[in-house]
Amino acid sequence: MTLKIGVIGAGRIGKLHAENLVTRLPGVDVLAIADVNEAAAQETAAKLHIPLASAHHQDILNHPDIEAVAICSATDTHSQMIIEAAQAGKHIFCEKPIDYDLSRIDAALNAVEKAGVKLQVGFNRRFDPNFARVREVVAAGGIGEPHVLRITSRDPGPPPVSYIKVSGGIFLDMTIHDFDMARFLIDSPVTEVFAAGAVLVDPEIGAAGDVDTAVVTLRFENGAIGVIDNSRKAVYGYDQRVEVFGAKGSITAENNTPYRTVLSNVEGVHHPLPLHFFLERYNDSYIAEMLVFIRAIANNETPPVTGIDGRIPVVMGLAATKSLRENRPVKLSEIG
Amino acid sequence: MTLKIGVIGAGRIGKLHAENLVTRLPGVDVLAIADVNEAAAQETAAKLHIPLASAHHQDILNHPDIEAVAICSATDTHSQMIIEAAQAGKHIFCEKPIDYDLSRIDAALNAVEKAGVKLQVGFNRRFDPNFARVREVVAAGGIGEPHVLRITSRDPGPPPVSYIKVSGGIFLDMTIHDFDMARFLIDSPVTEVFAAGAVLVDPEIGAAGDVDTAVVTLRFENGAIGVIDNSRKAVYGYDQRVEVFGAKGSITAENNTPYRTVLSNVEGVHHPLPLHFFLERYNDSYIAEMLVFIRAIANNETPPVTGIDGRIPVVMGLAATKSLRENRPVKLSEIG
Amino acid sequence: MTLKIGVIGAGRIGKLHAENLVTRLPGVDVLAIADVNEAAAQETAAKLHIPLASAHHQDILNHPDIEAVAICSATDTHSQMIIEAAQAGKHIFCEKPIDYDLSRIDAALNAVEKAGVKLQVGFNRRFDPNFARVREVVAAGGIGEPHVLRITSRDPGPPPVSYIKVSGGIFLDMTIHDFDMARFLIDSPVTEVFAAGAVLVDPEIGAAGDVDTAVVTLRFENGAIGVIDNSRKAVYGYDQRVEVFGAKGSITAENNTPYRTVLSNVEGVHHPLPLHFFLERYNDSYIAEMLVFIRAIANNETPPVTGIDGRIPVVMGLAATKSLRENRPVKLSEIG
Amino acid sequence: MTLKIGVIGAGRIGKLHAENLVTRLPGVDVLAIADVNEAAAQETAAKLHIPLASAHHQDILNHPDIEAVAICSATDTHSQMIIEAAQAGKHIFCEKPIDYDLSRIDAALNAVEKAGVKLQVGFNRRFDPNFARVREVVAAGGIGEPHVLRITSRDPGPPPVSYIKVSGGIFLDMTIHDFDMARFLIDSPVTEVFAAGAVLVDPEIGAAGDVDTAVVTLRFENGAIGVIDNSRKAVYGYDQRVEVFGAKGSITAENNTPYRTVLSNVEGVHHPLPLHFFLERYNDSYIAEMLVFIRAIANNETPPVTGIDGRIPVVMGLAATKSLRENRPVKLSEIG
Repeated sequence: MTLKIGVIGAGRIGKLHAENLVTRLPGVDVLAIADVNEAAAQETAAKLHIPLASAHHQDILNHPDIEAVAICSATDTHSQMIIEAAQAGKHIFCEKPIDYDLSRIDAALNAVEKAGVKLQVGFNRRFDPNFARVREVVAAGGIGEPHVLRITSRDPGPPPVSYIKVSGGIFLDMTIHDFDMARFLIDSPVTEVFAAGAVLVDPEIGAAGDVDTAVVTLRFENGAIGVIDNSRKAVYGYDQRVEVFGAKGSITAENNTPYRTVLSNVEGVHHPLPLHFFLERYNDSYIAEMLVFIRAIANNETPPVTGIDGRIPVVMGLAATKSLRENRPVKLSEIG
Repeated sequence: MTLKIGVIGAGRIGKLHAENLVTRLPGVDVLAIADVNEAAAQETAAKLHIPLASAHHQDILNHPDIEAVAICSATDTHSQMIIEAAQAGKHIFCEKPIDYDLSRIDAALNAVEKAGVKLQVGFNRRFDPNFARVREVVAAGGIGEPHVLRITSRDPGPPPVSYIKVSGGIFLDMTIHDFDMARFLIDSPVTEVFAAGAVLVDPEIGAAGDVDTAVVTLRFENGAIGVIDNSRKAVYGYDQRVEVFGAKGSITAENNTPYRTVLSNVEGVHHPLPLHFFLERYNDSYIAEMLVFIRAIANNETPPVTGIDGRIPVVMGLAATKSLRENRPVKLSEIG
Repeated sequence: MTLKIGVIGAGRIGKLHAENLVTRLPGVDVLAIADVNEAAAQETAAKLHIPLASAHHQDILNHPDIEAVAICSATDTHSQMIIEAAQAGKHIFCEKPIDYDLSRIDAALNAVEKAGVKLQVGFNRRFDPNFARVREVVAAGGIGEPHVLRITSRDPGPPPVSYIKVSGGIFLDMTIHDFDMARFLIDSPVTEVFAAGAVLVDPEIGAAGDVDTAVVTLRFENGAIGVIDNSRKAVYGYDQRVEVFGAKGSITAENNTPYRTVLSNVEGVHHPLPLHFFLERYNDSYIAEMLVFIRAIANNETPPVTGIDGRIPVVMGLAATKSLRENRPVKLSEIG
Repeated sequence: MTLKIGVIGAGRIGKLHAENLVTRLPGVDVLAIADVNEAAAQETAAKLHIPLASAHHQDILNHPDIEAVAICSATDTHSQMIIEAAQAGKHIFCEKPIDYDLSRIDAALNAVEKAGVKLQVGFNRRFDPNFARVREVVAAGGIGEPHVLRITSRDPGPPPVSYIKVSGGIFLDMTIHDFDMARFLIDSPVTEVFAAGAVLVDPEIGAAGDVDTAVVTLRFENGAIGVIDNSRKAVYGYDQRVEVFGAKGSITAENNTPYRTVLSNVEGVHHPLPLHFFLERYNDSYIAEMLVFIRAIANNETPPVTGIDGRIPVVMGLAATKSLRENRPVKLSEIG
């Protein structure tokens, strides 16, 4: 009854998932970890007492006891890894995004379907307690029919420009999480997006062909309107809030803080800054999403974030990119 | 040194200004009130001990002791009243909007300029303590260069559809305040707007050719991006919030409540609803704007909300209306 | 139908009430103001267009048209003024406290009863919207039977030591408001108090025989327990909060602020300081208490804060003073 | 370098510590668990893969590889267990309280001192992020010299009356945590306490000779005054707040909630209830205190909550009990 799993990728997110799987999650054994950087795989394996470390992900895919893999390798390998894992009959947890190329995504989803394995995509924010509660209230009709969705999503600081150059752009790299959040919170397809963007944080981001500040308007098929505002740099920390406003009220999720203290002095009444970045803020969500994946396999159920849930935010990101370039609203149906 | 003033219009807003002028504001005497509904003028005059009540605004314009007028009559008379008052040499406080027709606005502004009288337009929200504080912090550089502006402006309930039909549409009737707020908070011209709208509150509003829910994106010349979300109906009351996010931080204004109590019981931790509507929420701002008008005349200074400040939000409203119809971003320069 | 009133005392609180009566309150005419400092009376009379200014309060008491007086003179004159005003057949609004001597209070209350005039004591905080709301919820059973009452009452800074020397001590000068608040919020008599005090703000206050920091425990007849904490100096401003905790929940009143803005920057999330002191914080309550006084006379009803409501907090203050000296709980029945 | 530990007691708190030690804490191996209820020990051992389960705590004390024990057995066995463990040369983590009898505490502390082993007492709340932050700010001088300490500590519901009868009374069972918190936050000895109590939650608690509602005043040697308010039943959940007010400001710790959402509807603006009880609220603190214990042994340092820190809150509880009975302030020096 214990799920045997292998982790592909021993970078930041691979180590995080490996550690959660080993130390925080019941019902699972990590049998192997692989990374093209073999030293990284070995270091994590040693620290977490994982039996096998390898430079070759095939060692995981060929491992007869391993039933599932967590794909945490570089983004441009995801779709290929999914195809190989599916062909090897392994269930798949894959970090987002599957790919930035729709045809490669479709090839991966086809391989999954053909193999009949389970696939869960790592949109972890759905498992954050704040956002899960918002979804719960909205889905239960607690605010009536949704009319307006607002998502504020700002990073504490931009990644290196070298990363931005290969990131696919802000809408595929950063807003993609918010696109998924919009789909999670509003039970109606997005049909059209309009993106406004600017370079206000760092001119080098502009020189790299990207924007660092954006406001994206979403139209849902049911008439609701969404708006996402993004910034690559909020000096006060990681700003992650949503509001769903509807016919019977509204529900908001505020930022989390490391403690709940209030200091009053001659200068003001001071509250703590938000939890600094995703490793702190979304720590619980990484554990929760993996728990759900393990249970879905144990119970032979469809995981809650499927291949199509991995594909649509990419379509939205491509549409937003096109909208920004052409300064006009773009229908998702234009993208494919 | 006491300013002698006459009030034109004894409807809801006329009565409000008359009462503030008589009971709350120093340095001013109300000598007359006029309304085409003479009984309304007489009732207010009697209650507030105003010496003269008339059915004819000319009785105010011809009054030799009256130095200034507060124009609170029907919107479609504002521009004509301004012209007549300017020609009579009276200083002018005029409720928003001046007009929905730019040529009529221009005629009024020309008359004001020619006569050399002072004109203040009634964008009262600038004088609300919350928004005034936001502006103060932004103007002082407290958040650095502004990057994103968010305005949430939701009414507790829609006006009658009969009113909506003659209102000029949501962008000229309701969002116009938010357009002014955007100009007040961000010290850079708006160059382009994109409006998304929907009929989600009441299908009769749609039948009247208007929308009741809207999200409007603004581009400022300095690169900042603004977004306004409006609804004609927030069941929890009047929702009036702003956020300015910039290079060094953000500042938000939250809703005001009638008291600051917190009730905790088995069902939750409950805070009060916002102040219900504009008469409660913006009560102080109506007094403050009039105080500023009185002082501007006493000190022979330019009032803080001038004719051009009355004109530009109308341009923005017309651009948003066009944007909604054509589903594309519209430059203000397209409007005039 | 308009109440004719005279104001005795043109110091800070006298001027405040005079201005409210003239500019903010309907149904009342201020015919005279008196102060032993005649210039102060004249200045206020001139500013507010009050017909008569005098150095002699008798000019008010003898005024045939005056029906009511607002006693705002020095505390040590209150009880004598009440007696004289009652004998002159005037209704009486008297600032708190009536006196620090119970026999003088009793003489004043007897005179009021004999004359059959109305007396309202100036415990204005009952009319503050926050505390009025707490009382309303408690009285309506919203938190069930009250179990624990907490009052935090801290001034932004101490008065001059010269004032403290003649103030009657912290419990009669400052805590007296909180004793009244305890009686207002909990519908059961206080039977015993225990006071702990310390000199932590300013040693000169200690040298004057007083304390500047205190925690007072109250026992109510119905079993509920109250606790008041006082400080003469909260550097962050006027701290005025209460909490009533009961069988079905709790209700708290938080501090008021001049605006509701939140500034987030690299150092934290900053809210405004409380309104600085009583003139700002309790401004509305001064108007509201006077409105209630005017209406009580107009409707021939008993005012809501009567002579006995003025007497009991003095008994509590004397009991707390004795408790502090003897370091033991003191029953109110020991005081008289 | 890995600490070998045994857990004595497999009840609620023993299971909690065992699980944290096994699944959440690095640098430690749990070699055995013992409980007089052998089945309970076996169940936990099986679930957590602990090698040895026993009905006899001596099997742990005699275990040659075990270096430390976590004493989680019934309160009345703590002091005896400490003595035996000390004599066996094991380092000791002991749940609070050590005992309700001072002579038995002293015997235990003597045994610890004689054996030279380390002892940490389980006042876990010191390790809660909120309270740790308050302490940090106070200790750093962030609010200046402390003047007033307020602790609100209310349980969501009372334990069974059968438990209350053997609990030592509210001050030794419940307030003892708050006594420790007072010592943690204010760096000056408590010299005197005054306790007011009432039976307002359940008359059966009164019939058992205890109170269920209490307000305790503390005097610190440096002049600061503390006040603790307790209730056995807050219907809205576990209410755990503190405030330290001082010369330069105040710092408060608010309640934690499972998520940070705000629902606005026609009835109000609703926030979530506090985390329900100590297992949820103090979950992190149980892990943190054990981590500190493990590290203290590894680094051969004195643990942060020592034997004397376990003794003094018992003295305070006995003083409060005496104060309640005699209705007078009681000096700690009267107790011993």
